[in-house]
Amino acid sequence: MITRLSSLFARTLREDPVGAEVASHKLLVRASYIRRVAPGIYTWLPLGLAVLRKIEAIVREEMAAIGAQEVHFPALLPAEPYRATNRWEEYGPNLFRLQDRRENDYLLAPTHEEMFTLTVKDLFSSYRDLPAIIYQIQTKYRDEARPRAGLIRAREFVMKDSYSFDIDDEGLEKAYQLHRDAYERIFNRLELDYVICQAMSGAMGGSASEEFLFPTPIGEDTFVRSPAGYTANAEAVTYSIPEPIDAGAVPPTRQLFTPEAKTIAILVDQLNERAPRERTWQAADTLKHLVLRVDEPNGQHRLIVIGLPGDRDVDLKRVEAALAPAEVQPAAPEDFEDYPELIAGFIGTKHIGPQGRKDSDGNSLIEYLMDTRVAEGSAWVTGGDENDHHSIDVVFGRDFQVDGRIEAAEILAGDAAPDGSGVLEIARGIEIGHIFQLGRKYAQSLGLNVLDEHGKSRVVTMGSYGIGVSRILAALAEEYHDEHGLCWPIQVAPAHVYIVATGKDPAILETATTLAEQLDEAGIEVILDDRAKLSAGVKFADSELFGVPNIVVVGRGLKDGVVEFRHRASATREDLPVAEAAEVIAARVHDQLQRAGR
Amino acid sequence: MITRLSSLFARTLREDPVGAEVASHKLLVRASYIRRVAPGIYTWLPLGLAVLRKIEAIVREEMAAIGAQEVHFPALLPAEPYRATNRWEEYGPNLFRLQDRRENDYLLAPTHEEMFTLTVKDLFSSYRDLPAIIYQIQTKYRDEARPRAGLIRAREFVMKDSYSFDIDDEGLEKAYQLHRDAYERIFNRLELDYVICQAMSGAMGGSASEEFLFPTPIGEDTFVRSPAGYTANAEAVTYSIPEPIDAGAVPPTRQLFTPEAKTIAILVDQLNERAPRERTWQAADTLKHLVLRVDEPNGQHRLIVIGLPGDRDVDLKRVEAALAPAEVQPAAPEDFEDYPELIAGFIGTKHIGPQGRKDSDGNSLIEYLMDTRVAEGSAWVTGGDENDHHSIDVVFGRDFQVDGRIEAAEILAGDAAPDGSGVLEIARGIEIGHIFQLGRKYAQSLGLNVLDEHGKSRVVTMGSYGIGVSRILAALAEEYHDEHGLCWPIQVAPAHVYIVATGKDPAILETATTLAEQLDEAGIEVILDDRAKLSAGVKFADSELFGVPNIVVVGRGLKDGVVEFRHRASATREDLPVAEAAEVIAARVHDQLQRAGR
Repeated sequence: MITRLSSLFARTLREDPVGAEVASHKLLVRASYIRRVAPGIYTWLPLGLAVLRKIEAIVREEMAAIGAQEVHFPALLPAEPYRATNRWEEYGPNLFRLQDRRENDYLLAPTHEEMFTLTVKDLFSSYRDLPAIIYQIQTKYRDEARPRAGLIRAREFVMKDSYSFDIDDEGLEKAYQLHRDAYERIFNRLELDYVICQAMSGAMGGSASEEFLFPTPIGEDTFVRSPAGYTANAEAVTYSIPEPIDAGAVPPTRQLFTPEAKTIAILVDQLNERAPRERTWQAADTLKHLVLRVDEPNGQHRLIVIGLPGDRDVDLKRVEAALAPAEVQPAAPEDFEDYPELIAGFIGTKHIGPQGRKDSDGNSLIEYLMDTRVAEGSAWVTGGDENDHHSIDVVFGRDFQVDGRIEAAEILAGDAAPDGSGVLEIARGIEIGHIFQLGRKYAQSLGLNVLDEHGKSRVVTMGSYGIGVSRILAALAEEYHDEHGLCWPIQVAPAHVYIVATGKDPAILETATTLAEQLDEAGIEVILDDRAKLSAGVKFADSELFGVPNIVVVGRGLKDGVVEFRHRASATREDLPVAEAAEVIAARVHDQLQRAGR
Repeated sequence: MITRLSSLFARTLREDPVGAEVASHKLLVRASYIRRVAPGIYTWLPLGLAVLRKIEAIVREEMAAIGAQEVHFPALLPAEPYRATNRWEEYGPNLFRLQDRRENDYLLAPTHEEMFTLTVKDLFSSYRDLPAIIYQIQTKYRDEARPRAGLIRAREFVMKDSYSFDIDDEGLEKAYQLHRDAYERIFNRLELDYVICQAMSGAMGGSASEEFLFPTPIGEDTFVRSPAGYTANAEAVTYSIPEPIDAGAVPPTRQLFTPEAKTIAILVDQLNERAPRERTWQAADTLKHLVLRVDEPNGQHRLIVIGLPGDRDVDLKRVEAALAPAEVQPAAPEDFEDYPELIAGFIGTKHIGPQGRKDSDGNSLIEYLMDTRVAEGSAWVTGGDENDHHSIDVVFGRDFQVDGRIEAAEILAGDAAPDGSGVLEIARGIEIGHIFQLGRKYAQSLGLNVLDEHGKSRVVTMGSYGIGVSRILAALAEEYHDEHGLCWPIQVAPAHVYIVATGKDPAILETATTLAEQLDEAGIEVILDDRAKLSAGVKFADSELFGVPNIVVVGRGLKDGVVEFRHRASATREDLPVAEAAEVIAARVHDQLQRAGR
């Protein structure tokens, strides 16, 4: 196929689009692969669509290879099934909701667990029908609070979502592993860097889950890795609760006057001044109490208090992951109005959790959750529950109890990996895939049962597996670009060869066109820059911006019987005799394609 | 590719789905090509998706052949551009509208004129950039009042929409003709019957437009055709206004007592009894006045009166087409409350149109529109504007005036074609394609100008061209089925060959599998019915229901060394020696594919 730039629906931009912060967003707009329509909503122009289709093709091939069957569900769905699984509420404001002309509730689907479950229920009835893997590549919707970074966090996006259906856990584990392997093959074939991390399953429910992250400093996800191969999303890092400590030698609690000591730093200074001991007091000796406001999807909200060592900051994303689908934010002054017992800056253990007031169900009015790293029996300095006072030698388990445990403290580089595999390194990434063992949650809610070999009804167990197809395109643009523009791997590039005709001599465009035709006949996709009245400088700049891996310049060299062959990624250049150019270039391209598995 | 029925995500149904009225809907659900999710919203199961993709591929090839470039716009769009062209209102309740979390207005696009116009404006600036044809195959949304007939009138559907951009009318006409020819090639390649009809452009605006209709008694559109080749949607039939008649000899109007004569039939009887004349009175001598309520998209409504000969019924679809985007319905009793001058059953010409009250702008309060077939100077019996009275010898132009003309009367078989090409035949059809010369309406509203060769700014002229891709699939199912099931043309069939293995002898499934593998190697798509424990009867029934054009039965004949080859459409059967079967069948299939242009 020959694409002629003179008529291609594409116009490059010299300037970065307003508001674009990351390279993929800037370059995909500048090279006119995409155009913004609204926040997080983009149009695919011909070049962008060409790359997207090639990514989709690779995903389809690998899904077919694990026996997955392709279907296509509507994006516009009735609310009822999502009400049955409670996700109509749990998704909160992230869901695009609407009504039809009869005032029935609909949504634009962010993911399709419910519909797949119901359709399998409709079609299947026996264990003989299982196992099954069904998938779609489809447009999804999520009303993100902060759409950003172009295609990376969009509100309308393309996703491959597949679902596995099995009669038993062993089957689910097999389907999970099939997907894990398929995802590795997909990202390897795309030459997209990735790490597999332990993950939280969030609003999806379910048990085991792993995330495929593309590591990049612009990523929104934080992950950790140890030298021995432990990798996890920071949200999913789980430390085991330490063994209790013997608190027998700890003296009784005493109060200390700590005027204005509303920060840990001031408190530590005052402790060393007013209550000196052999070992100097440090932030790690203090127990900090953080009051958070938890907003449930049903609109209700409540306060919780998290206890964690004073030398650690809380990681709200970790807390939110633990409390999903609720949303969490630091409590504001007005949230305290109904709780006069909480003295800001001096909150101790006396009025929270089991020590505090109860609600009508007998539960703690203010739930008190302790960070996992705090051991029972350990002694702390914490708030004195009266103004300008702290309490010393407050022992967890002796002097107070909590309602539960939570992973709340931020993970720091140098922390020990939870599995003992060494010291953690911290990095950022973009989620490009996610695999879940859902288990029986959806099947149970929606009544997906089959008869087993003994004629007994059994609830089906499910897995759910997503790949962000349009996000992968952006991730590839992040990984493959330089200061001049995009630089696609050949298996996803919008064309294999880009021919620039530059100069006024009519023989130049003629030679370039002939070369394009020869390559086209050899099955090679060509973009031909046949634009008239443009300087060589503009044409060269565009040739690099577009990101086609092989560039051929037909220009000044023609009078010496040569064209220039440039390899975009390595920036190597060489002259090829015109007569041999087509054959040599075709051989190179076929070789590149073969190495890329196409 | 071999698709094994034992694991295919498909389950046939013996019974028609509840509520399904047309064959395509029944069979597509029974053969599990699709499943209903909500009114007018369907899921594509693997077989349906396979057929849809093949139709899309043919559409893409023919669009590429006329130089059209593929893009992909969002389905979720901001309201602003649709407000600028007034379509946000004009679409009325047919538009799915929603708000995002910031309460900004969005819509699910029913068609994309605005976005294409704006994107071309963004990218193009010079006459040198034109002409251009840009298209997409995309999911569209329309909140139909009465979704029906499965995929034929759906609320979420797949459409190919393309748009042409030209500097002058000549360019637009060329782009229009290119599309007309491409559509003919598409429908010919699909072997889908079609007629090209003159059409109204409805809510799209613009001038010339033609519809491609698939003729079928279940169609919602009525079209007419004459022996000499005139074809038009009934909505678009336009008669020229007849020459005025000399009314010199018509006596003055007189009133006649016509008690209870509230229908034309009673009136005609009374006329012949109470006012006999040489020629008997007939319905065609009476002028009927129909009061309609017109609802504008902005929510305002008003009454209009249509005058037409008493022997004709009004065709509300024609009236609505003429008054689009307003909606029209017969006035209800409460609509008359403010108009005591209108005496139900006896409405004449005295209080309507120019004879009646005026609104504040000086226009007729009740607009009076005359059917085009009524000549000025003609004399009529019409309502007497007093109870139980009619007026005789009321002359149009002498005794009353109207505000305008309208095509309102229903077209009847046997009417003369407007172009004098003979007598009209009436038929029904389904709209499968529509081509419009939009002109400059959208470009003007949205400011799409380019500089011409003299550096002057010129408004671009546009065309808009749609094909209902998912509707075509249903139309093909309507055209190609029999009492046993579907019967696809090979170029769109979900597979080329369907192999039924029937019988308990293990050699049967073995032979069937080998044959499937041999055909697969020859590039033929095979569905293999390898299901165990099913009767031959069920398997044969399914083989016909699925609609694959070639069926091979491996069963009883195997002991004689033969398999049976059945051609689904012609119902021919022949035995083929096992050893030669693969070769013979492959040759037949390749021959069929070649004849179908694949």
